[in-house]
Amino acid sequence: MVPFRLYRHLIPQLAAAARSPSAPKAAASCAPRRIPPLPALAMAAYGTGVCADSKLLFRQLFEKESSTYTYLLADVGDPEKPAVLIDPVDRTVDRDLNLIKELGLKLIYAMNTHVHADHVTGTGLIKTKLPGAKSVISKASGAKADQSVEHGDKIYFGKLFLEVRATPGHTAGCVTYVTGDSPDQPSPRMAFTGDALIIRACGRTDFQGGSSDQLYQSVHSQIFTLPKDTLLYPAHDYKGFTVTTVEEEVAYNARLSKDKETFKTIMENLNLSYPKMIDVAVPANMVCGFQDPPSKV
Amino acid sequence: MVPFRLYRHLIPQLAAAARSPSAPKAAASCAPRRIPPLPALAMAAYGTGVCADSKLLFRQLFEKESSTYTYLLADVGDPEKPAVLIDPVDRTVDRDLNLIKELGLKLIYAMNTHVHADHVTGTGLIKTKLPGAKSVISKASGAKADQSVEHGDKIYFGKLFLEVRATPGHTAGCVTYVTGDSPDQPSPRMAFTGDALIIRACGRTDFQGGSSDQLYQSVHSQIFTLPKDTLLYPAHDYKGFTVTTVEEEVAYNARLSKDKETFKTIMENLNLSYPKMIDVAVPANMVCGFQDPPSKV
Repeated sequence: MVPFRLYRHLIPQLAAAARSPSAPKAAASCAPRRIPPLPALAMAAYGTGVCADSKLLFRQLFEKESSTYTYLLADVGDPEKPAVLIDPVDRTVDRDLNLIKELGLKLIYAMNTHVHADHVTGTGLIKTKLPGAKSVISKASGAKADQSVEHGDKIYFGKLFLEVRATPGHTAGCVTYVTGDSPDQPSPRMAFTGDALIIRACGRTDFQGGSSDQLYQSVHSQIFTLPKDTLLYPAHDYKGFTVTTVEEEVAYNARLSKDKETFKTIMENLNLSYPKMIDVAVPANMVCGFQDPPSKV
Repeated sequence: MVPFRLYRHLIPQLAAAARSPSAPKAAASCAPRRIPPLPALAMAAYGTGVCADSKLLFRQLFEKESSTYTYLLADVGDPEKPAVLIDPVDRTVDRDLNLIKELGLKLIYAMNTHVHADHVTGTGLIKTKLPGAKSVISKASGAKADQSVEHGDKIYFGKLFLEVRATPGHTAGCVTYVTGDSPDQPSPRMAFTGDALIIRACGRTDFQGGSSDQLYQSVHSQIFTLPKDTLLYPAHDYKGFTVTTVEEEVAYNARLSKDKETFKTIMENLNLSYPKMIDVAVPANMVCGFQDPPSKV
């Protein structure tokens, strides 16, 4: 069994990014700032080439009904091949666990970026089928889980880890999971943004403790300050995109590339309908990460 | 304008693969062979880590209605950032061209792995919107295009290239596009298999000159002989998978991991319904790669 190693400390990259000439000074202090659009040909940060010597196994998985992406990451340099699943969906748990079995991985954490309103998480079902796996969600979400994480925590799987960055605004408990930046971690970095940032857009901010003001600050201070070639993987996509980068979103995000007041106006005028799954999904997702395996019930 | 460089010669990797101890000797001669399943924990070939110094920009794009993957590849080490699109779909052309514009790429080829029966290719529409782009399809398909390619051709975009491997069986004109294996090409290699191989399955073989016997030989001689960590990207997926590897498919493909006779029996008993789009898609796809821009019509 791979031990759970969780370290709570500030993320040095934030300070480093603030000192970097390429990072606007205002970013570190979460102050609103206008991001000037980049001319297309000047863009330097691209994804996603592949690399032979990476010890990261990475798979992006899609659930069509809710347009949700689930992410599988594993350290295949470790003999036990410890793995994590980010944002699993209940309907696709069997697919995911079968893939994990075929690849010879050992799932240690089933993690959520937040309490989803549009689908039921697969976490509870995973725990019933694979009692060794632990559920993970942010403490700020108020949801039950085996491990409640906070900003600055590091979640290890083998020698690889994900940093926890608090990115509230879509919900009060949203976090972004970010790979480390030391030489033995994947390069470029990867950030799993949940609904805080989706490709060219963002999650709504009108329920579950949402706040457009807070979301703007979260993304600008915690995501846009990452290196510009950081690969951003959202919890959803509705147009068939699979990945983006910090540089692309700073330039082209239809909402978050605007100034804060414009962003807030956009978010206040989305006129979205009530989510059809919310009354089922939210209550289920608040507790199912803590669902015990049948033998213990 | 990046010149079209097309070299017709045999692919040395095929001979090398046949000589390699890891490649079964029968593979090079296309003889049927049984692939023993690998124990899960022995699997060494994984994807898809990311790499900082790759000059390949790679994006996987999804069209939900036909569950089609379109692939964007570009050489971002080249000042012009020449790009190719593999298997574009008519319904998502605007999305794809907008992304190409945002990323500052220059689309030089819109390529098809075969004449699709389930959707209309985006090639013709791309040519009307971007007259500089050339359409590419195999000569064996019988379809019209600016460039007709054959087994062994290399299609360059900047310093990167795709080899053409003939993989008939789903249709008589199917090809697989494979990245090169020299040190300046992406590693691990990537193969865009069209419908010859889809994740854990394959395309049907009961129309358009299909042959289960031929498909089995194509996949075993042209795809399963690639290095086991080669990333395989299909034209479709219906279960939410995005990528697989040679090693995984040799072990776990529900059809192609079987012996040839079993495979043929499976393919003869699929009892699939007539494709709803075939009578629209095939006639359109036979000619639209050659559709001239409006100014020339």
